[in-house]
Amino acid sequence: MTAYPLTVATLLVALFIYIWSIARVGGARGRHQVQAPAVTGHPEFERILRAQQNTVEQLVVFVPLLALAAAFWGDRWGALYGVVWCIGRALYIVTYAQDAQKRSTGFMITALSTLVVMLALVVTLALRIV
Amino acid sequence: MTAYPLTVATLLVALFIYIWSIARVGGARGRHQVQAPAVTGHPEFERILRAQQNTVEQLVVFVPLLALAAAFWGDRWGALYGVVWCIGRALYIVTYAQDAQKRSTGFMITALSTLVVMLALVVTLALRIV
Amino acid sequence: MTAYPLTVATLLVALFIYIWSIARVGGARGRHQVQAPAVTGHPEFERILRAQQNTVEQLVVFVPLLALAAAFWGDRWGALYGVVWCIGRALYIVTYAQDAQKRSTGFMITALSTLVVMLALVVTLALRIV
Repeated sequence: MTAYPLTVATLLVALFIYIWSIARVGGARGRHQVQAPAVTGHPEFERILRAQQNTVEQLVVFVPLLALAAAFWGDRWGALYGVVWCIGRALYIVTYAQDAQKRSTGFMITALSTLVVMLALVVTLALRIV
Repeated sequence: MTAYPLTVATLLVALFIYIWSIARVGGARGRHQVQAPAVTGHPEFERILRAQQNTVEQLVVFVPLLALAAAFWGDRWGALYGVVWCIGRALYIVTYAQDAQKRSTGFMITALSTLVVMLALVVTLALRIV
Repeated sequence: MTAYPLTVATLLVALFIYIWSIARVGGARGRHQVQAPAVTGHPEFERILRAQQNTVEQLVVFVPLLALAAAFWGDRWGALYGVVWCIGRALYIVTYAQDAQKRSTGFMITALSTLVVMLALVVTLALRIV
């Protein structure tokens, strides 16, 4: 991993964005007085919670694919995927909290970049195994 | 990672199964008219959502163990674990959506293969450290 | 990974703690008769479920940071982070089930150790890229 500094940098940014989404849930719990372990309450709290939960769900795909992208294509391609994903995710977290209807753009940026990387990895791997 | 093509192939299949479980939640939201961020509604929607959430929960154990299995035992053993896990998980996602009582077989295939790999890794590691 | 036996050992303990948190949810489902896919019911069940969900949320940050800590600083530093995290997490899971108010100490141990490792990795990486 020490050979992939740019990719690792985007991984750290992605983990930071994710931790920030968790901190926002804590903030919304306080603001709207939703005591743990409740997961329902004020609509803004629910949107912020769902944004964070969705970020976990995406992160578990992103991290392995990021590692594979760097390993198979080099540090710069890994970092490119990392940067695009981070932008889409930060946008998603901010816009979902404002309005559930607005979350699509950010979602599509991360989802499409992930699908493209995944398909490209399948091709790369198929060429390598054959 | 480039030295473990078969294991990486099963990892990509596992991530694909997981993304498919997310897509099913989106489909069930539309079919049963459960607007985000709601997480309750029609029983089928709830079962599909729980199947997806459970898959995240299992995936976060599977991915590190798969990497360790390949690193400690070689590509073929990693891939074997990957194949078994993918079969169990796909079965779980399909059967849970049909009936919560039916989910046990798929669940046990992934859970047992994960426990076996985990215990075998503990033994391997203990022999290596001693 | 085979070059980092101590770090891998703490990773296996962390995954074991996490699987144990999942098993506790199953136990609480039976004890308080909360049939899947329901995620609400008796307060103790809800606390145990939230403790497990929070553990997933933390684990997805812990595993990549643990790998980076070992890769950049060596096996002993990775293992040190792993041990601290495991102690904090086990404490959190036990205390949250007893009383939601008691969960802070365990939470802070994992959260602070994760933040310290993250910041230290940013510094390490910045020095390496510059």
